[in-house]
Amino acid sequence: MERVEIAIIGTGPAGLEAAITATLRNKKILLIGDPDLSGKLRKAHRIDNYLGLPEIAGSDLAEQFRAHLDKMGIEILQDRIGGIYSMGDYFALQGGKDNYEAETVILASGVVMEKPIPGEQENLGRGVSYCATCDAALYRGKTALVLGYSPEEEAEVAFLAEVAEKVTYLPQYRAEEYPGLGDATNIVVEKETPLEILKADGEMVLKTSTGSEYHSNGIFVLREATPPDQLVPGLGTEGNAVVCDRQMRTSVEGIFAAGDITGAPYQYIKAAGEGNIAALSAVNYLVAKKRNAGA
Amino acid sequence: MERVEIAIIGTGPAGLEAAITATLRNKKILLIGDPDLSGKLRKAHRIDNYLGLPEIAGSDLAEQFRAHLDKMGIEILQDRIGGIYSMGDYFALQGGKDNYEAETVILASGVVMEKPIPGEQENLGRGVSYCATCDAALYRGKTALVLGYSPEEEAEVAFLAEVAEKVTYLPQYRAEEYPGLGDATNIVVEKETPLEILKADGEMVLKTSTGSEYHSNGIFVLREATPPDQLVPGLGTEGNAVVCDRQMRTSVEGIFAAGDITGAPYQYIKAAGEGNIAALSAVNYLVAKKRNAGA
Repeated sequence: MERVEIAIIGTGPAGLEAAITATLRNKKILLIGDPDLSGKLRKAHRIDNYLGLPEIAGSDLAEQFRAHLDKMGIEILQDRIGGIYSMGDYFALQGGKDNYEAETVILASGVVMEKPIPGEQENLGRGVSYCATCDAALYRGKTALVLGYSPEEEAEVAFLAEVAEKVTYLPQYRAEEYPGLGDATNIVVEKETPLEILKADGEMVLKTSTGSEYHSNGIFVLREATPPDQLVPGLGTEGNAVVCDRQMRTSVEGIFAAGDITGAPYQYIKAAGEGNIAALSAVNYLVAKKRNAGA
Repeated sequence: MERVEIAIIGTGPAGLEAAITATLRNKKILLIGDPDLSGKLRKAHRIDNYLGLPEIAGSDLAEQFRAHLDKMGIEILQDRIGGIYSMGDYFALQGGKDNYEAETVILASGVVMEKPIPGEQENLGRGVSYCATCDAALYRGKTALVLGYSPEEEAEVAFLAEVAEKVTYLPQYRAEEYPGLGDATNIVVEKETPLEILKADGEMVLKTSTGSEYHSNGIFVLREATPPDQLVPGLGTEGNAVVCDRQMRTSVEGIFAAGDITGAPYQYIKAAGEGNIAALSAVNYLVAKKRNAGA
């Protein structure tokens, strides 16, 4: 796939505004995320403080956003980015379906509100994974346990079950049914709250609040957002937020951030405003880079 | 007038979003500025990157904003603030029509794009004024010269002419007619570009690019925005922008800023996003203040 000038990760208000602004500045972009836009936005009952669109349901605001994208011919590439790596002159983005290249990156993938489970980060890449689409192939004929934090994750679980021998699914949200799981017969749903992740005799073990222990070859923790320092190794963070300045520059040159990933307040109009700034900062960065290359 | 919790200066996107957010948080606010909203916004031909409202004329976007205010019962107090002074526990706001008191202030009065005229800042308050409404009374029976940077200033000139003996008006914008001046017979319009302001023999002198010299008792420089460090004595600035952090806190505790006054990029959605942050920071400041007072 051709290298783009700006890759934008996330399809909430921050990512969408960044995509619009960058497109208006004639930049070649890739907007990567959920084509259904932000789940958090779509489910919002009513939003009162998005200036110019009073008393609007989240689903209606999402439709307004989609109409804006359509009018400008901006498309969303459906994928989930698991890692972003600096290659000197550009960035390599590792997705579940494909890999991508971009000169600059705007992180707008939202915030992780949940605290990590004890043992989760210690075992990441060594039995714990954040991306079923990325790592499913490793579980052919094996067993996997999945903690899912939103109904959107059910499709990932169903995909994993096509490959793995058996999948135990622990939904961490309230629901009576799990339609996204489809009709797979090798998925077992358990209503349990995770307490700790351990490794024992080459197997992964999840302890739960009922005192139970679940053994499997691997544990997937699927949240709506990936912790930013997992996404970009070495990225400066404070708590669960990416550290950035008022131009939305992060600690990694060429990587910008916008929206909930940059910290509170978690507000739609704030996210959109930051997406605008991040896009213009990325444009300025590209101009300076081209100037330096020519000098 | 009763002391409010949050005074918001300016009725562009930053001030309006701040007013909406603060009102939703049940704060007692005062929104001060031009009831016709931002002149810059109304005159914008087309805005393409206000997410959710594609391809919209500035005047239509202004109407959307007004509808939002109306729906929430937010009113605009028409006045121009010339100075904001810390009184320890609150701020005193000096307006052209009245004075006001507020526990916190959000500066959203836009940016001064023009460089000051040589001699302008040196003579401020000593023959040079930024506010005709505030200082007109000093010119009863005297002569005044006015530099106006937008048609909105014509009403100020007409008001000044009701009091002063003679007013010389130097419009600094392109226009064939000056309808805002009304039918006053003591206003003389000259198309001249200012070069320097001097004081000589107790009179103010304006030198222009044609080599002419205009003598008067006082010179008014009327721009859409007042330089922020003139508005708030001691406020930290960098160039023509107010220095603030990502929570939109300025160098003066209790004063926040949002929109063009905080620097580039000069964009509507960026301004609105910052207005949201500034309002929530002001709310947090009020909570902390109340907690400390109770302790």
